[in-house]
Amino acid sequence: MPDFPDYDPTVAELAIGYHEPAGLSAFLGMETLDVGPGRMRCAVEARPDLMNPFATLHGGVVAALVDHVLGSVCYPVIAKGAWAATTEFKVNLLAPVREGTVVAAAEIVSMSKRTAVVRIDVTNGDRLVALAQGTVTIKAPRT
Amino acid sequence: MPDFPDYDPTVAELAIGYHEPAGLSAFLGMETLDVGPGRMRCAVEARPDLMNPFATLHGGVVAALVDHVLGSVCYPVIAKGAWAATTEFKVNLLAPVREGTVVAAAEIVSMSKRTAVVRIDVTNGDRLVALAQGTVTIKAPRT
Amino acid sequence: MPDFPDYDPTVAELAIGYHEPAGLSAFLGMETLDVGPGRMRCAVEARPDLMNPFATLHGGVVAALVDHVLGSVCYPVIAKGAWAATTEFKVNLLAPVREGTVVAAAEIVSMSKRTAVVRIDVTNGDRLVALAQGTVTIKAPRT
Amino acid sequence: MPDFPDYDPTVAELAIGYHEPAGLSAFLGMETLDVGPGRMRCAVEARPDLMNPFATLHGGVVAALVDHVLGSVCYPVIAKGAWAATTEFKVNLLAPVREGTVVAAAEIVSMSKRTAVVRIDVTNGDRLVALAQGTVTIKAPRT
Repeated sequence: MPDFPDYDPTVAELAIGYHEPAGLSAFLGMETLDVGPGRMRCAVEARPDLMNPFATLHGGVVAALVDHVLGSVCYPVIAKGAWAATTEFKVNLLAPVREGTVVAAAEIVSMSKRTAVVRIDVTNGDRLVALAQGTVTIKAPRT
Repeated sequence: MPDFPDYDPTVAELAIGYHEPAGLSAFLGMETLDVGPGRMRCAVEARPDLMNPFATLHGGVVAALVDHVLGSVCYPVIAKGAWAATTEFKVNLLAPVREGTVVAAAEIVSMSKRTAVVRIDVTNGDRLVALAQGTVTIKAPRT
Repeated sequence: MPDFPDYDPTVAELAIGYHEPAGLSAFLGMETLDVGPGRMRCAVEARPDLMNPFATLHGGVVAALVDHVLGSVCYPVIAKGAWAATTEFKVNLLAPVREGTVVAAAEIVSMSKRTAVVRIDVTNGDRLVALAQGTVTIKAPRT
Repeated sequence: MPDFPDYDPTVAELAIGYHEPAGLSAFLGMETLDVGPGRMRCAVEARPDLMNPFATLHGGVVAALVDHVLGSVCYPVIAKGAWAATTEFKVNLLAPVREGTVVAAAEIVSMSKRTAVVRIDVTNGDRLVALAQGTVTIKAPRT
């Protein structure tokens, strides 16, 4: 596990329970459940209108959730004013989701000044439904 | 380029201009621009409410668009009643999107009875903004 | 963690300490350290002749090691005569390797009749040097 | 297609036909066939001793070849003294290789000062046998 000397719990606390007033996160109803140094969990409810024609959760919902936690897990551990830009990620969709809530748990597994590599597990109840690994570029604050 | 002996232009034509009445695709305003054997192009407008706090298009919008075309490009070329399930994909986000429309162009570059591998280029005007490669599992119709 | 009802410890024991007489694995000196249900560890020594012109371990060595454990971790848990074919994988190279041994630890994190998804951590001493996630297709024995 | 203002044809020409005297590239017999601005093709012969127990080319050979061209395609287009470090790549193995030569054709599809994104097609005769997409970090020359 990497160290997170810049971890700022006040940034973390601000994220918990915060809801975007509009946009994709608001539409999906993304909710941050908990945040710690190098880790974060966010949830989306598998509402009927987020299903595809096969009555399973649209893969794009999971993809958007993965993208969201990939960048968001970095903010509490980077310098104030720095920016976490998603470089790339890879996601495996393992099982269809029919109801309940999907929870994405992100963990920074490697971190340098410029790059973080993050692994993400997405669960639906006690079932693993997606797995991701991605790379985030840390941009220093503009001075 | 693989052959697509099961290509059904009527399935392709149904997709063009079709808008989902609700759900993620409807919220994002996804529009299918054109469809051919093993290829499809879909667009999303970079509306103000799809931006992130940095005034660039939320990465989750691009991720959801990639997920959408990855599966959708398969339907016109698989047997009637078959199902295209996204196994996994990888996406590189190359440049921020500030306005205009993002267009995802998907091409099936390899296809067997059970698997399709698809490459996707996402452009914003004449700029390449994302690149993806993904795997789709083809499930035979239930008999 | 998935269950592995077909785990065969005799297949696992055969792999430990076995050295291929020739080929890529022999050239790289791959050694299986330990094997269990859904997990395996293999090592390669960072010999001087495996370095690149920058005096760090050739990335291809890590890539080949990742590919090796991705498929090999499946054999003790699939039916006798079945075949584990690598569908795809993604690897992040995190840090250069200058000496010592690289150890790839593979874990099957999801498994169905036809597919396994595996995560791999590659370490060099106590440093994490690569992270991978891949998909294996299980082919039933020919009858 | 990105521009390559730093393209140096003399660097390109040095690569063609060059054989490493030792190491992984030498063992695999990697040969650079041709090089241009943002593109490169390298070949490996599917020798009997590179096969796996199923008489098909070891996936690690393809993985090592992909890793090799991913970085190598960058050298002729980056500043003299700069360094191209593989950040990550993803590869799909599409079909087994039983004989002949595998040729990896790399193309830089996106390039900034610090990052190149590369796509790679691997063919065996006229069959596509692998597809990859990867990210390279460009490190400026030390001054």
